[in-house]
Amino acid sequence: MFSYAERYWAEKIIRLALAEDVGRGDITTAAVVDPEAKARGYIVFRERGVLAGLPVVAMVYERIDPRVQVLPSRRDGDLLLPGESAALLEGPAWALLTGERVALNFLQRLSGIATATAELVELVRPYPCQVADTRKTAPGMRVLEKYAVRVGGGRNHRLGLDDAILIKDNHVIAAGGIAKAVAAARAKAPLTARIEVEVESREQVEEALAAGVDIIMLDNMDVHQMARMVDLIDGRALVEASGGITRDSIAAVAATGVDFISVGAITHSSRALDVALDLAISEGAAK
Amino acid sequence: MFSYAERYWAEKIIRLALAEDVGRGDITTAAVVDPEAKARGYIVFRERGVLAGLPVVAMVYERIDPRVQVLPSRRDGDLLLPGESAALLEGPAWALLTGERVALNFLQRLSGIATATAELVELVRPYPCQVADTRKTAPGMRVLEKYAVRVGGGRNHRLGLDDAILIKDNHVIAAGGIAKAVAAARAKAPLTARIEVEVESREQVEEALAAGVDIIMLDNMDVHQMARMVDLIDGRALVEASGGITRDSIAAVAATGVDFISVGAITHSSRALDVALDLAISEGAAK
Amino acid sequence: MFSYAERYWAEKIIRLALAEDVGRGDITTAAVVDPEAKARGYIVFRERGVLAGLPVVAMVYERIDPRVQVLPSRRDGDLLLPGESAALLEGPAWALLTGERVALNFLQRLSGIATATAELVELVRPYPCQVADTRKTAPGMRVLEKYAVRVGGGRNHRLGLDDAILIKDNHVIAAGGIAKAVAAARAKAPLTARIEVEVESREQVEEALAAGVDIIMLDNMDVHQMARMVDLIDGRALVEASGGITRDSIAAVAATGVDFISVGAITHSSRALDVALDLAISEGAAK
Amino acid sequence: MFSYAERYWAEKIIRLALAEDVGRGDITTAAVVDPEAKARGYIVFRERGVLAGLPVVAMVYERIDPRVQVLPSRRDGDLLLPGESAALLEGPAWALLTGERVALNFLQRLSGIATATAELVELVRPYPCQVADTRKTAPGMRVLEKYAVRVGGGRNHRLGLDDAILIKDNHVIAAGGIAKAVAAARAKAPLTARIEVEVESREQVEEALAAGVDIIMLDNMDVHQMARMVDLIDGRALVEASGGITRDSIAAVAATGVDFISVGAITHSSRALDVALDLAISEGAAK
Amino acid sequence: MFSYAERYWAEKIIRLALAEDVGRGDITTAAVVDPEAKARGYIVFRERGVLAGLPVVAMVYERIDPRVQVLPSRRDGDLLLPGESAALLEGPAWALLTGERVALNFLQRLSGIATATAELVELVRPYPCQVADTRKTAPGMRVLEKYAVRVGGGRNHRLGLDDAILIKDNHVIAAGGIAKAVAAARAKAPLTARIEVEVESREQVEEALAAGVDIIMLDNMDVHQMARMVDLIDGRALVEASGGITRDSIAAVAATGVDFISVGAITHSSRALDVALDLAISEGAAK
Amino acid sequence: MFSYAERYWAEKIIRLALAEDVGRGDITTAAVVDPEAKARGYIVFRERGVLAGLPVVAMVYERIDPRVQVLPSRRDGDLLLPGESAALLEGPAWALLTGERVALNFLQRLSGIATATAELVELVRPYPCQVADTRKTAPGMRVLEKYAVRVGGGRNHRLGLDDAILIKDNHVIAAGGIAKAVAAARAKAPLTARIEVEVESREQVEEALAAGVDIIMLDNMDVHQMARMVDLIDGRALVEASGGITRDSIAAVAATGVDFISVGAITHSSRALDVALDLAISEGAAK
Repeated sequence: MFSYAERYWAEKIIRLALAEDVGRGDITTAAVVDPEAKARGYIVFRERGVLAGLPVVAMVYERIDPRVQVLPSRRDGDLLLPGESAALLEGPAWALLTGERVALNFLQRLSGIATATAELVELVRPYPCQVADTRKTAPGMRVLEKYAVRVGGGRNHRLGLDDAILIKDNHVIAAGGIAKAVAAARAKAPLTARIEVEVESREQVEEALAAGVDIIMLDNMDVHQMARMVDLIDGRALVEASGGITRDSIAAVAATGVDFISVGAITHSSRALDVALDLAISEGAAK
Repeated sequence: MFSYAERYWAEKIIRLALAEDVGRGDITTAAVVDPEAKARGYIVFRERGVLAGLPVVAMVYERIDPRVQVLPSRRDGDLLLPGESAALLEGPAWALLTGERVALNFLQRLSGIATATAELVELVRPYPCQVADTRKTAPGMRVLEKYAVRVGGGRNHRLGLDDAILIKDNHVIAAGGIAKAVAAARAKAPLTARIEVEVESREQVEEALAAGVDIIMLDNMDVHQMARMVDLIDGRALVEASGGITRDSIAAVAATGVDFISVGAITHSSRALDVALDLAISEGAAK
Repeated sequence: MFSYAERYWAEKIIRLALAEDVGRGDITTAAVVDPEAKARGYIVFRERGVLAGLPVVAMVYERIDPRVQVLPSRRDGDLLLPGESAALLEGPAWALLTGERVALNFLQRLSGIATATAELVELVRPYPCQVADTRKTAPGMRVLEKYAVRVGGGRNHRLGLDDAILIKDNHVIAAGGIAKAVAAARAKAPLTARIEVEVESREQVEEALAAGVDIIMLDNMDVHQMARMVDLIDGRALVEASGGITRDSIAAVAATGVDFISVGAITHSSRALDVALDLAISEGAAK
Repeated sequence: MFSYAERYWAEKIIRLALAEDVGRGDITTAAVVDPEAKARGYIVFRERGVLAGLPVVAMVYERIDPRVQVLPSRRDGDLLLPGESAALLEGPAWALLTGERVALNFLQRLSGIATATAELVELVRPYPCQVADTRKTAPGMRVLEKYAVRVGGGRNHRLGLDDAILIKDNHVIAAGGIAKAVAAARAKAPLTARIEVEVESREQVEEALAAGVDIIMLDNMDVHQMARMVDLIDGRALVEASGGITRDSIAAVAATGVDFISVGAITHSSRALDVALDLAISEGAAK
Repeated sequence: MFSYAERYWAEKIIRLALAEDVGRGDITTAAVVDPEAKARGYIVFRERGVLAGLPVVAMVYERIDPRVQVLPSRRDGDLLLPGESAALLEGPAWALLTGERVALNFLQRLSGIATATAELVELVRPYPCQVADTRKTAPGMRVLEKYAVRVGGGRNHRLGLDDAILIKDNHVIAAGGIAKAVAAARAKAPLTARIEVEVESREQVEEALAAGVDIIMLDNMDVHQMARMVDLIDGRALVEASGGITRDSIAAVAATGVDFISVGAITHSSRALDVALDLAISEGAAK
Repeated sequence: MFSYAERYWAEKIIRLALAEDVGRGDITTAAVVDPEAKARGYIVFRERGVLAGLPVVAMVYERIDPRVQVLPSRRDGDLLLPGESAALLEGPAWALLTGERVALNFLQRLSGIATATAELVELVRPYPCQVADTRKTAPGMRVLEKYAVRVGGGRNHRLGLDDAILIKDNHVIAAGGIAKAVAAARAKAPLTARIEVEVESREQVEEALAAGVDIIMLDNMDVHQMARMVDLIDGRALVEASGGITRDSIAAVAATGVDFISVGAITHSSRALDVALDLAISEGAAK
C-alpha cells in the first residue's frame, strides 16, 4: 500500500531530486520546445521485471506540472515483459521532457529492487520462509525501498533504529553479556518494542533463549549449524538468517527451517531495471 | 575536491538519511550502552576498491556528536586492498553505533561508484578517451555521485538540466530539425551554454556540423559507424559515445577515436563495496 | 539520556518556538539594553518539582548567541525545592533577555510532565507495575515529552504509529475479528514489530491469547475485572491498563497485577511548573 | 478569524506533529485495514466546553488524504455539551485512523484553552475589563493558542517580541530607570510600536506616566494597591493587571477598574478537553 | 517562459517574503474587514514600462487564498502605458489586502528590470549585438530576475557558478597564466561547460585565442580598443563587453562589433516601476 | 544592532542566495585554483557611501568555509571614501572566490540603502523630523533592509502586517468610516498594537483625532495642506508624511512640522553602491 507515509517521504526525496537535476531550469526544453506543444509518452519496460514506483512517477510530474496525466495500464507488483508499457503520460511536452530523467531514476531503481526481491522470494517458495530487507538502503530512499521490497513479495525488517531492539555483538560487549543487554533493554526501552539478538554460537543461542528474546538472528553461520540452531530454538523465538546470503545459497538456507532470511544486496546493490519513456511530441511547431 | 557545494548537497541528503534511520532514537543503544562509554573503530575494506566518501562519513558523525573524531589513514581516490583501513573513529560508543549504518551506506555506495569508474578508466587508458557519467544517479545523490566519478578518474557530463544544452531526438522532433533546434538554443538559452546534439545517423552528424554544435553524441551506434563518424567530424566538435556500453565493449569504443564515453551503469547500477566498521567498546560498564 | 534523537527533534521545535516569539526582533531589548552589557541569571524553581529540560535551555541559548554559558548546578531528574536553582546563565544581557521566555516555556512544561510522572510512579511503587505514557503529547513535542516521562521515572509506550502494532476496536471491526487482525499484522507488518491488542471483555482477552499477541491492553475496565483478566492471562502476555486512570485510582489499578498503566494526562494536561529566570544585569550603562 | 497567518503557522506545526507521530508509516492500519474501506466518524465532546481548532482538524486530514471530508456541524466558539458532535468525517478508513491522534491532540488542546478562557471571561463579565493572554504558550503553538484565546472571548497581548515594547524590571535596571528606558525605546524602536512598562510601585507608576507610556502593567500588586493605581493613572494609560491571577481572584481584580488582566495559565497549564473520534468502518472486508 | 524552474524558485522567495511581511497575521485586516466581504482590484501601471512578474502575483495570492482569481488582461513582455491595467483580481477582500504589498513588491521590481533591459535593447537595436545580464541580482531573486531580463528582450549570461567556466584575473593569477587556467578547466571541469576568459589586453586576447576558448570578455576597455580586439578575434570566439557600460555608452560599444554586452545595473540598481493595486471592496459590511 | 533576529533572517536569505549562485559547484575555481592556495582580499569602496552589511559578509563566508577570516577595519554606519577598505578577508583562495559575488551582492545593496537613507537624514537635519522606511523592501530582505535604514540614521516604520494597525483607505471603506474602523481595531486587535490611520483630507484628520488614534499619516498632501494639518493635530497624535517624497522635496516637507517622513524609494529603488573585493592569491601553484 502506497499510503500517507510513503507519500511523505517520497515528497522529500523527489523535491531533492528535482532540485539537483533541474537547477535553475531545463534550458534545452525552454529554448527548443514550443511551450504550448503537447506530448504523450509510454513508460516501457526494456527487460522483464516487477513494476514498482508508479505512484512516485505521478508525484514527480504532479510537482512539475499538475496538468500532466499519468494513466497507469499496470500496477505496482505486476510482472512486465520486455516491450510492455506500465503507463501512458499525457501533458505539456516541456513538462514530460523536463521530468523524464528524475521519474525514470526512481522507477528504474525501485523496479530493480522489487525484481531482485521477487527472484529470491521465488527461490524460497518451497519453504515456509520469508525474504526480508535490511537498513542498507540508498540514503533518503528508506521508505520507498522498503515499499519496493514489499511490492516484490518480501518482508520488512526494522524500519530504522527506533522501532525494535536489535542487540548486536558490540552491544553485547558494551553491556557485559547477552543477559545483561536484554535486561537493560527490557528495563529502559519502550515497552512496545520487540527484542532481537544477533548470535554467532550455540552458547549465545542458549543465552538468548534464557533471556526470553523475541527473535534470534543467526549471523554468518553455515547451513548445518543453522539447522541445528533451528532445532534447538524449537519455536521459542523467531529465527532470522543473515550474512552474505545470495541467489545461489538462499534455498539451502531456507531449507534449514529459519523463519526469514535478510539480504542487504536487494537494496544496496540492486541493478536499475531498463525502463524508458517513449515520447511522441504532438504537432506544436517549434517556438 | 570536496568543497562547499559537495558539503552543501551532502548536508541535505545526510539530514534525510539520519531522519529516516534514527527516527525518534536508537532505542537499542540508549538502553544498552553506557552513555559515558568510549569506543574506537576502524573503517575496513573487505574487498579491493577505490575509497570515496570519507568526508561524508565525517559529516555524518559531526551531526550525531561533534566529539566523534574521524581520523583518516587514507584519502579519497586511494586504492585499498581487503583488510586495509580507511580511517580510525574515536568517540562516545553510543555515537559510533548510532551513526554506523548511515555512514557506511554512503561510503559503500560512493566507493562502489569510484571503483566501477576506475575499472572503466583503466580499460580505456591506451586511448586518448575519457569516461563520463550521466544524470542516471540515485535521487538526492547527484553531486556526491558525480564527485565519486571524479574520484575514480572519470569526468563529469552535465550536472543537471541547466548547465548545458543537450538536444535529443524528441527535441529535434519538437523543433522541426537539428538546424532549427540549434538555432533556437542559440537564440534563447544562456550565451554561456555549450550545445550538444544527439545523433543517430550520418545525415544527422552532417546537420549538426553545419549547425556548428560544440559536442556530438553518437547514440547507440556500432563501433564501425562510430569510427566513420569520428573521421567525418574530424575535430570540428567533441565526440561522445553513449548507449549500453559495458566493461566488455568499452575498449573497442575508445579505439574508434571518440573523445569520451558516457556510461549510466557506473551510477545507476553500481554495486556497494563491502566495507565495515570494526568497533572496540572501551571499558565503560553497562548502564 | 538526552542523545542525538532528542537533540534532533528539539532543534526543530526550538527553531519554530524562536521564530514565532522573536519574529523580526526583540525590539525592547534592542532599543533599551546596551549591546555590550553582560548579565548573569539563575534558573530558580518557585515550587517543588522534578527538573527536566535543561539541555533544551542550553540549545535555545546556543541558537540565540553561542557566547551564553548555561552552567547546570543540578541535573535532569533531580527533585528541586522552592527557591533552588537549576543552573546559572552568563552572557550578553540582550541574549539572556531575548531567550528567556522560550527557554522557560520548554523547561516549565517538561518539568511539569516529569513531576506529574514522578508522582504517579511514587504511588505505584509498592507494586511491580510501571507508569507509561501515550501518544497524547503536545504537537511537535513528542520526543521531548517522552524524554520528560523517562526523567520522571516513567516508561515509554509507542513512540509513534510505526514502532509497534496496536490493534484497537476499530481495527478489529475493520479486520473482522481479533484473530484476523492479528493474522494480518503478522503477515504484513515488519517482522520486528511487537503486537498489542486492546480488549474490553473476557472473550476478547481469550481471543487475543489464542492469537498469541505480545501485549494485551485492558481498556476502561474496573479493577475487579482487571484483576480477573490478569489471572486469566497468567503471564502469557504483558498486561497494560488504560483509560481515565488518575492519581486517585492508580494504586488500586497497580494492585490488580497489571504490568503497566498508561496515563494520557501526564502529557496532555500537565501543569507547567513555576520556574523563573532571576537576572542581574551587570554595570553596562544604557545605550 | 482563521485566516492566512493561522494556516501558515498551523501548517508548520501540523507537519511536525505528523512527522513525529506517523514516522515511516502507520503499520497497524497498513496491515489490518482494507485500503479500499471507507469510514465515517463523529468528533464528539465527552465534556462541556468551547470548540476551537476545527480548521486545524481539516488541515491535518487534508495532508493525510485530501479525499477525507471534514463536515462541521458546529463552529469554533460554540459551546458544546457532553455527547454533542462538532463534525462528521468521511473518507478512507485508513486515513481517518492514521490521522485520529494528531487531529485530536490539536483539538483537545485548543478547545481546552478556549474553554479556560471563556470561564475567566464569564467571571469578569460584570466589569469593563478584558481577559488577555501571555507569551507562555506551548512551543510552536503560539499563533494557534492565541487564536483559541480569541475564540474563547479573550484578547491577545503581544504576539511576540517584535510587535510592542514591554519594558520589564530588568530592562529598567539595564537602562538606568524608567524614564531612560522609555526614551531609548522612543528613540530607537519602530515608530509604530506601543510602549508598555511593568511597574511594582506607586513611584514607578508616576515615572511611567511622566514618560508618557501607552500601557502600564501592574505586576503582582494586591487589589487595594491596584485600585489606587487605577485612580492615579486616571485614563492616561491603559492599565494591565498581571501575576498569578486565578479563577478565584479574577473578579476582584476586575473590580479594581483595570482595563485588562493577563493570565498565563490559560495557555501554559490548560487541561485538554475530553474529545473523541467515534468511528464506524464501512463494510470493506479485511485485506 | 515561466516554467517549472521559475515556479520552484519563486515559491521559495515568495514563502520568505510572506513570512517576513505577514508574520503572525495581518492584524488590521483581521480586525477591520468583514471576513465574508469580497473585493475586486486592478493592477494599474502608474508609469510606462514593460510588464514582468504576473505569474508571481498569481502565486502569491494562490498561497494566501486559492479563491483569489488573478485574471490577466496583458502578458509579461507587454509595454503598458500609464493608467493601463495588467490584471483584474477578485476574491475575499481580506486576502487581496493581505497580499497586496508582497505581490506589488515582486511586480514592481521585476517590471523595473524588464523595463531597464528593454531600454538598453532598444539602444543597440541597430547592431547585431545583444544585452546580457550578470550575477549581480538581488539575493534570492536570481531566477526571477534572469526571467525579467529575458522578458525585456535581454539574454542570460551564466545562471550561477556551475554552468560555465569564467576565468577572471584572479583565476589567471592562481593558475599561472591563461593557458594553464584553460588547460586545467579543460582537464577537470564538466565536459559540457563552455569556457570564457576575461581579458584586459591584446596579449591576453591572443593567449585566449591560442587556448581555444569559447568566449572572450573584454573588461573595461575603451571602445577603440574593443573594436581592435573584435577585429583580432575575427569570429574565432564570441566577444563580450563588460564593465560600467551605461545607457549613454552602450550604442558606441555595440558599434564595435562585440557579440553581447553585459550590464550589472539592470538588476543591481533597477528602479521599481510605479505600479498600484486599485481596490474596490464590495458591499460586505464591517465586522 | 545586528542581533539574533537579523542573523536569523540573514541566514535564510544567505542560504537561498548561495543555493541559487553556487548550484552544484563553482566549477571554475574547482578546476583552476589549487585547493591548498591561500588568499587575502580587501573589501574596497569604489565610491563614497555608508557601510552596511559587514556581518552578512562574515555570515556568507562562515557558511562557505569557517576558516575564512573576515577582519573588519570599519564598522557598519561608517562613511567610507572611494578607495577605503571596509575589511580584510583571509582564507582559502577557492573560498574567497566562490563567495565573492554573493557577499558583494548583499553588501552593495545594503550599503546603497544606508547611503540613500543618510542623504535624506542629512537633508532634514535642521528640523525635528525623522526619515522612516516602508514595507517596500526586496523580497526576503525585509529585516536586513530595515537594519540598513537604521544604520543610515533612519527609523523603522512597521516591520510587517502584525506589529501595528495601519488603516488605509480601503480599510476605511470596508469598515464604513474611520470611526468604525478604529473601533473595530480597538475591539479585536492585540491590546498592545498602536493604531495609525491614513488620511487625505481635513475631515478625515478630524475623524481620526476624534477616534483617538496614535498616528496620522498624511497621504499625498502638498506642503501647505500638511502644515495646516500639523497645526490642527497639535500634538494629539504623531504625524507621518507619505507619498512620493524625494530628495528635492523632503526638506520642505520636514519644515511643515510632521514628526516623520516615510520614503519607499530608499529600499525599493536603491542603487547598489560600487564595492569590490580586491584579491591577492598567495603563492599556491596551479593544481
